[in-house]
Amino acid sequence: MGSSFGKIFTISTFGESHGAALGVVIDGCLPNIEVDFDLIQRDLQRRKPGQSKLSSPRQEAEDVDILSGVFEGKTLGTPITLLVKNTDVKSADYTPIKDIYRPSHADFTYDAKYGIRDYRGGGRQSARETVARVLAGSFAKMILNKLGIHIQAYVSQIHTIQVSKSYLELDLAQTESNLVRCPDSETAAKMEEAILKAKAEGDSLGGIISCVVKGLPVGLGEPVFDKLHADLGKAMLSINAVKGFDIGSGFESVLRKGSELNDSFTIENHSVRTKTNHSGGVQGGISNGEDIYFRVAFKPVASIKSEQESITKQLDNVKFSIDGRHDSCVVPRAVPIVEAMAALVIVDHYLRNASYKMQAFS
Amino acid sequence: MGSSFGKIFTISTFGESHGAALGVVIDGCLPNIEVDFDLIQRDLQRRKPGQSKLSSPRQEAEDVDILSGVFEGKTLGTPITLLVKNTDVKSADYTPIKDIYRPSHADFTYDAKYGIRDYRGGGRQSARETVARVLAGSFAKMILNKLGIHIQAYVSQIHTIQVSKSYLELDLAQTESNLVRCPDSETAAKMEEAILKAKAEGDSLGGIISCVVKGLPVGLGEPVFDKLHADLGKAMLSINAVKGFDIGSGFESVLRKGSELNDSFTIENHSVRTKTNHSGGVQGGISNGEDIYFRVAFKPVASIKSEQESITKQLDNVKFSIDGRHDSCVVPRAVPIVEAMAALVIVDHYLRNASYKMQAFS
Amino acid sequence: MGSSFGKIFTISTFGESHGAALGVVIDGCLPNIEVDFDLIQRDLQRRKPGQSKLSSPRQEAEDVDILSGVFEGKTLGTPITLLVKNTDVKSADYTPIKDIYRPSHADFTYDAKYGIRDYRGGGRQSARETVARVLAGSFAKMILNKLGIHIQAYVSQIHTIQVSKSYLELDLAQTESNLVRCPDSETAAKMEEAILKAKAEGDSLGGIISCVVKGLPVGLGEPVFDKLHADLGKAMLSINAVKGFDIGSGFESVLRKGSELNDSFTIENHSVRTKTNHSGGVQGGISNGEDIYFRVAFKPVASIKSEQESITKQLDNVKFSIDGRHDSCVVPRAVPIVEAMAALVIVDHYLRNASYKMQAFS
Amino acid sequence: MGSSFGKIFTISTFGESHGAALGVVIDGCLPNIEVDFDLIQRDLQRRKPGQSKLSSPRQEAEDVDILSGVFEGKTLGTPITLLVKNTDVKSADYTPIKDIYRPSHADFTYDAKYGIRDYRGGGRQSARETVARVLAGSFAKMILNKLGIHIQAYVSQIHTIQVSKSYLELDLAQTESNLVRCPDSETAAKMEEAILKAKAEGDSLGGIISCVVKGLPVGLGEPVFDKLHADLGKAMLSINAVKGFDIGSGFESVLRKGSELNDSFTIENHSVRTKTNHSGGVQGGISNGEDIYFRVAFKPVASIKSEQESITKQLDNVKFSIDGRHDSCVVPRAVPIVEAMAALVIVDHYLRNASYKMQAFS
Repeated sequence: MGSSFGKIFTISTFGESHGAALGVVIDGCLPNIEVDFDLIQRDLQRRKPGQSKLSSPRQEAEDVDILSGVFEGKTLGTPITLLVKNTDVKSADYTPIKDIYRPSHADFTYDAKYGIRDYRGGGRQSARETVARVLAGSFAKMILNKLGIHIQAYVSQIHTIQVSKSYLELDLAQTESNLVRCPDSETAAKMEEAILKAKAEGDSLGGIISCVVKGLPVGLGEPVFDKLHADLGKAMLSINAVKGFDIGSGFESVLRKGSELNDSFTIENHSVRTKTNHSGGVQGGISNGEDIYFRVAFKPVASIKSEQESITKQLDNVKFSIDGRHDSCVVPRAVPIVEAMAALVIVDHYLRNASYKMQAFS
Repeated sequence: MGSSFGKIFTISTFGESHGAALGVVIDGCLPNIEVDFDLIQRDLQRRKPGQSKLSSPRQEAEDVDILSGVFEGKTLGTPITLLVKNTDVKSADYTPIKDIYRPSHADFTYDAKYGIRDYRGGGRQSARETVARVLAGSFAKMILNKLGIHIQAYVSQIHTIQVSKSYLELDLAQTESNLVRCPDSETAAKMEEAILKAKAEGDSLGGIISCVVKGLPVGLGEPVFDKLHADLGKAMLSINAVKGFDIGSGFESVLRKGSELNDSFTIENHSVRTKTNHSGGVQGGISNGEDIYFRVAFKPVASIKSEQESITKQLDNVKFSIDGRHDSCVVPRAVPIVEAMAALVIVDHYLRNASYKMQAFS
Repeated sequence: MGSSFGKIFTISTFGESHGAALGVVIDGCLPNIEVDFDLIQRDLQRRKPGQSKLSSPRQEAEDVDILSGVFEGKTLGTPITLLVKNTDVKSADYTPIKDIYRPSHADFTYDAKYGIRDYRGGGRQSARETVARVLAGSFAKMILNKLGIHIQAYVSQIHTIQVSKSYLELDLAQTESNLVRCPDSETAAKMEEAILKAKAEGDSLGGIISCVVKGLPVGLGEPVFDKLHADLGKAMLSINAVKGFDIGSGFESVLRKGSELNDSFTIENHSVRTKTNHSGGVQGGISNGEDIYFRVAFKPVASIKSEQESITKQLDNVKFSIDGRHDSCVVPRAVPIVEAMAALVIVDHYLRNASYKMQAFS
Repeated sequence: MGSSFGKIFTISTFGESHGAALGVVIDGCLPNIEVDFDLIQRDLQRRKPGQSKLSSPRQEAEDVDILSGVFEGKTLGTPITLLVKNTDVKSADYTPIKDIYRPSHADFTYDAKYGIRDYRGGGRQSARETVARVLAGSFAKMILNKLGIHIQAYVSQIHTIQVSKSYLELDLAQTESNLVRCPDSETAAKMEEAILKAKAEGDSLGGIISCVVKGLPVGLGEPVFDKLHADLGKAMLSINAVKGFDIGSGFESVLRKGSELNDSFTIENHSVRTKTNHSGGVQGGISNGEDIYFRVAFKPVASIKSEQESITKQLDNVKFSIDGRHDSCVVPRAVPIVEAMAALVIVDHYLRNASYKMQAFS
């Protein structure tokens, strides 16, 4: 259970890190969408390990097979199945730690829950699963592109190094201009340095990804439980290593008073706007037409090279170190994952909102 | 759409603030649970407006009608319907602002989405809806109590005033000993002062509620999308005025390195434990048997007495001030709401996990 | 579990036969629909016991309380809660049979499943639950009426007495002109006679309800599992006492060859039509614009006056007879229930189909 | 939408008839189930076209790839993905009819709904999709086998030729002893003859599949909407060419009186049994421990060799005949499909019922 997401635009991901393949079935995608193969490849490349000196050396070819739902370059409205085979798997690397419960990994909890576990490369708990999310997200983006809705995530903090400017002061188009995916080049350089230092030390670093959604129409999000930001929060918290989420002024808003934080309405070009946007584009769980922006906190990844203490499945104490090919900092690679999950939430709410837009009732 | 929550233990809330009644239908509650009427009343009282000088003077009798699902004091396993009638509603108070889009409220987004809105007391967008969550949560707690799972939330920050100690250093049993529901009495006094000051100024304050869950068995939570903390996050973010959520070391974990943050496993009394608990009791989205703790950030409520600028439905500019009976700080009253939502998520995951525990397969 | 139905237009019913009330929460109804109070009352009256000499003498006032989701006579788009209080309950009637497992009732299965049971009037297993379906169905009908979609069910068979004509040869407007709701008055008279005879004998009769849906647009229904007729089938089979369902030529189609049964396409007034309609308006699970027609088989109700043998909860053999106020034949009263369930399925599929109709993509 | 089925044991099927592959993702299968590869192959073989002179000559190798969820021969509790590649596709056969709306096919409704259609081999509307159901069903059967629950379907009628005996008088083990899968060998011979005659005539025949489930525990099925037989009905009606479903005495029960049809309870070997089983093993939607038996009506397949009239997408009249490789009667091949769908419903309800069986509450 738990491998499906979305109500109308529904995805079901599958696959273990060192199994035959990873993939996703998308049910509920609109028909007649031209498949943007470049977009698929671009996002896959951004998520891919081994893309730079900053990331894991695991080489994943990431050739995508489209098994269903696409005909003559267009979506059919039927389930779309996307598959990435697992290659360059070095499962033997994992044999020594097959019985070890690695600290802050899900080895123990999977064993306790299921009584069985594919220990190779972390099995289903591996962040390799997110390749399926990026694939699905690229189809969501194809729809959003047609609607003029654009999502851009970027790294705003690595360890103690943070971008001091708000997203409004940054040129987000610069995000891809450096390896850490931070649009502020000076800060990016410091982040890169920090990551390489941690790598040299056999340690790992976390960070924060900020994400901005522009062009959203008014009215997306359902009241009460399925608030737009509640679904965004769940989507982000479901990504491996994420420990926190906030939207708009978020945790910061605690430090302000109501009189300082309220977003007054005003009229601009005959449409309703707010003078400020502390709300982050969502009021009462429903989009108000302003930019949505939110933050996602990633802890440092648990796989580190330094020696650690833990126990085995047989309840013996052990000392061990992990020799697998791991990132010292996954945050730059998580940028397209955050975008993908945001795209999935938004396209799903866009389609959920369709019923209110039916012509017969307007 | 959007007024239901949960997969097995499912709740559907209904009701507008000044409509006939608010309530909830719980489908999927276990049968044969003795109804703890005191627990229901206690949590209702904790959420109730008008309970102290700190909160809104609206008097809600909060008599609960149980319309179905309970027979001779026990749950039947059929849908349980709980109803609280709306009394002491002063809808006339709202006539002057009926066409005004109050800043940072959902007046505009509801109008844009639905083309119709019950303006009295905020209608469905009102936090009065949370009375239904507290009612449902009390049934979830009845089950959790039998399982030895206990949830305790408390106020850890109001505006700039925060509890400096971790929950482990606090006596959480003291939470109810003061009006702000902060277990640290000295900090509580300062918080109370700050709230009264904001009230006098016609302003409002936000804060942070921390929540601790003890006694959770290992294995709750589903991998990938329905991670335990992802569902907790969604639950919390769906509460009115919440703008952020983090679990375990949360946003703080960004500032640590992997080597500092990893929770090593160890053996204690023949069971698997972790030496530290930066993970917050969840690894890979599944409970590991340690305490779960998380934070929920509430912005200051948008309803303030001071004069504000905004626009009307007819797109005219207006200045106005809100005369309704509002809290200057809802955070103390939100403590039982946070607990209720946590209880709902946990009991639902407990029941989802039941299939893995079937005797025929163990 | 199991008391909810629908994906977008979702209903949750609640209530025990002799509990405080029965009711339903509708989540996902379109906003701005004018509430047709007459329609609600008319359908309630048609389902009501005690409406004629043919039905149970239980008097149910059936005053409906609308607790939420309606404002100034229109739907708000928020959950609509409808309540009917239980009055004229004679629970004492049931005390003698409180421990008896009545043949072909769900006393035993409820006890086995839940370990507890409200024996009064059958509790949750009672067909009184269908009052909630009729209430919800009337809101579905309000939407369908605006769309020009009309549903008409009628009694086509009671015991061995059947209407020999197809629905095309009948004047369905005559359905309400007699007590059995059979549009063929001659057959109706025989059916009435048969029911009164069974009543006199302390026995019960079953029958078949036929249902016709006119005006459905092309394209409703989802391929594979959520085929329109599969969802209709589930809806009908969920009604108390229903044992069979077929659509179009149904079971009869087994006796025909492909060449006899295929519905050839043709053009009529520039639109695609079929020359025959053996398919019953659905092809590949999707509506083709022709009339939908289907049959629902009701077994004779299990509550009969004649003495029967059975066992008690304590596993003793007993002879007993049921003195409650029961119908000898519920089929006439089930006509609005069949219509209500059909309306719920169709409006739900209409809203599910909305996403494909979005202007941005046409 | 609409390609998923089940609440706990959830399947999502995908694939077009002449696309790259067909397959299914199963989410919610219990962990630690030994995979019975023989069972998978056996059911695939039973469904396969070209298995005898009675069926379509299309040769499908039906090699199954297990892409995920199975490790060292056992299920992991994670999503299981099963894939069958499409081989021996002769898509060119379909070019001549690419724009023709074949009578009683879903060509027109798919076009109308989606505005795009994969015409090759029927695309997603093809009954080839059911290979995915059989694959998923075989995993459901693996669980049911461990629980002692056995499902056996058989052909009880082809066109006008029917088995006159009840299932209790037949030796169901003989079902696979002939090509039509009818356990009564004499009737089977006549059915075979009828099918071959229809084949020679370029026509097609329908029939009825009866299905029996033995060994079901008491208590499966949820009251009100998710009654066990309502879910079975939906499952069966979702199979291509199915037009009717009934359970127990079904449509026949209309001809009986309550006094004739009620199933009296009795005690046998200290357990509760019924003397008769007109209910078909389900009372109030919940299994009562008796055999479940139901019937599924298949219309003759719409693809016939004889010349037919219809129209094209361009709204021109055409005469055409179908040259593809089609069965004259699919009913024998549908036996494992009926079993698979029954297995999916039952295992899902078994797991849904797990929460009521939790030790902490018994």
